[in-house]
Amino acid sequence: MKRRQFIRGAGAATVAAGAMIAAPAVAAPQFKWKMVTTWPKNFPGLGTGANRLAEMINAMSNGRIQVKVYGAGELVGALEIFDAVSRGTAEMGHGAAYYWKGKSTAAQFFASVPFGMTAQEMNSWLYHGGGMELWEEVYDKFGLVPGAAGNTGVQMGGWFNKEINSVDDLKGLKMRIPGLGGEVLKRAGGTPVLLPGGEIFSSLQSGTIDATEWVGPYNDMAFGLHKAAKYYYYPGWHEPGSTLECFINKEAFQALPEDLQVIVRSALRVANQDMLAEFTMKNNQALDQLVNKHGVELRNFPDDVLLKLRTLSDEVVAEEAQKDEISRKVYESFTAFRDQVQQWTAVSEQAYLNARSLG
Amino acid sequence: MKRRQFIRGAGAATVAAGAMIAAPAVAAPQFKWKMVTTWPKNFPGLGTGANRLAEMINAMSNGRIQVKVYGAGELVGALEIFDAVSRGTAEMGHGAAYYWKGKSTAAQFFASVPFGMTAQEMNSWLYHGGGMELWEEVYDKFGLVPGAAGNTGVQMGGWFNKEINSVDDLKGLKMRIPGLGGEVLKRAGGTPVLLPGGEIFSSLQSGTIDATEWVGPYNDMAFGLHKAAKYYYYPGWHEPGSTLECFINKEAFQALPEDLQVIVRSALRVANQDMLAEFTMKNNQALDQLVNKHGVELRNFPDDVLLKLRTLSDEVVAEEAQKDEISRKVYESFTAFRDQVQQWTAVSEQAYLNARSLG
Repeated sequence: MKRRQFIRGAGAATVAAGAMIAAPAVAAPQFKWKMVTTWPKNFPGLGTGANRLAEMINAMSNGRIQVKVYGAGELVGALEIFDAVSRGTAEMGHGAAYYWKGKSTAAQFFASVPFGMTAQEMNSWLYHGGGMELWEEVYDKFGLVPGAAGNTGVQMGGWFNKEINSVDDLKGLKMRIPGLGGEVLKRAGGTPVLLPGGEIFSSLQSGTIDATEWVGPYNDMAFGLHKAAKYYYYPGWHEPGSTLECFINKEAFQALPEDLQVIVRSALRVANQDMLAEFTMKNNQALDQLVNKHGVELRNFPDDVLLKLRTLSDEVVAEEAQKDEISRKVYESFTAFRDQVQQWTAVSEQAYLNARSLG
Repeated sequence: MKRRQFIRGAGAATVAAGAMIAAPAVAAPQFKWKMVTTWPKNFPGLGTGANRLAEMINAMSNGRIQVKVYGAGELVGALEIFDAVSRGTAEMGHGAAYYWKGKSTAAQFFASVPFGMTAQEMNSWLYHGGGMELWEEVYDKFGLVPGAAGNTGVQMGGWFNKEINSVDDLKGLKMRIPGLGGEVLKRAGGTPVLLPGGEIFSSLQSGTIDATEWVGPYNDMAFGLHKAAKYYYYPGWHEPGSTLECFINKEAFQALPEDLQVIVRSALRVANQDMLAEFTMKNNQALDQLVNKHGVELRNFPDDVLLKLRTLSDEVVAEEAQKDEISRKVYESFTAFRDQVQQWTAVSEQAYLNARSLG
């Protein structure tokens, strides 16, 4: 808490005191929280989004909550944050829900699934379509309170050193693509390869892999991927609006007074919107540089390839959801919402964007 | 402030007291604010969004700010709220910036202009592309602090009792369409008609007008417009992502301590995102009912009509921006951002939506 503000507050106290009934003068409590993240410290977009979220909570709570952000590996490893917050080693974690599919298959639906929903549709499902309630149900048994805390928007399809002109070109394709997207590629005849971020560039450059996906122009350019591949394919069918998350240790959250709980939840929602707004701007700038400065060749996946990937995606996601009861429940809610909302999206966002780019 | 919370806070005070330096125990100040709106009380989506914004500020500030919402006409008329907040009759106003074009031509760019930006693009421009700074500059001379506080998403093109098969069908068309969209229609040979909301239905039913735009399926259905027109055209080229606003009397805002300023700004951002999430869901449900229950015929404007409207829109908006220096400045920032961001949108949102609806 800043002393200056405290003093200013004290000056106003006498004015307001008459309006209070049995309101004893109190000093605000302090909550010193740790936020562990799956991102390297200050990682562009994702790590900086976590930093801003922490700053916002500090500012809105006037320092009553002080959140300190830890990069991956500083306190616990990137993929250990879920357990760390679950057991209370840290109070908050910032990551993406599909990292925890080993703990709960259902978690993946709260990040992104192939041919799923865009950011706008996801937010509508989460906040007004029952999605958040399901997410809370899934994380509750781990002692966690989840929240959406960012979105990348539609990602890119990836970097390729082979042209993709037909479904046959996917056969034998060695591509770094994790998760459900990787399973879809496998069913299309390709070979999904698992590689940590640090090995992607050299593997692509040496020809160990033919292709890789990463995030979008902003993060991909920072990684130098345009120096190791010729074609930049779109759209990112496998991650059409990836939601980032911030989960909170349930006991720690419940120990907050009600106004601080509302402040924390609101800060997450601001972070959710702000990250998308930032990614939209930064991706836009980076795309311009990639194309106009670095001469990257942008390519649209052919329609028959996209159709094939969509059919396979629907299969893979439906099968994945059969693993347990809660996954089936989340899948049904997610899929019903997507199948209906895309009819509204078709006559609104999609029809408008197509109208604007005619001619 | 709720007494229960105060007591809970007091219990924690002794724990935290050691961490405070020269922090006198204070009672929180109270700010009793009025929010005047351009919407009828509890108007679906827009008025209810204003209500939720007020509730959020109350909750996050733990009652230190108490906002009371007034529907149009309760305290001042719908189109008087700008002046009322400017002179301090009320502390906050909830409306849409294009209502104030008589005060400042530039204001229109902070709501929506024909063939402008989608909600996602607008937020990127406002929060990360310099848009908010310009908006603050425009409103500053009226003693107002502006903020985005909602978005309808892409609206619908409107209700028609005449088919629009070519540019020629716009000639002589009597359509209720206000603002810049109306000017575009006029240049296409049509007759824009100004009608208050309450007269739209009867005018359409009696044939006094051939067509009308309103908002989107959710609000249009509540208005019963499907009972007075045969065709429902899309997309809403004239309002592709209308931002709602909440402006605050500058003196009142500056009288808040810093943490409450951050709380108010954050609440606006949550409201901005939440309204879009709600409209996406509600429009989706209403569209389904309009088509499947009420048998409404959905029609896409033909490409040559959209191309003509786009050309005319660009002319109208560019001319409008020449009215004064600040409008030129805002226009240049807005247009530069739109022209570039649409290249990123084309390979992300647009390409993905088109891929998802193939086949």
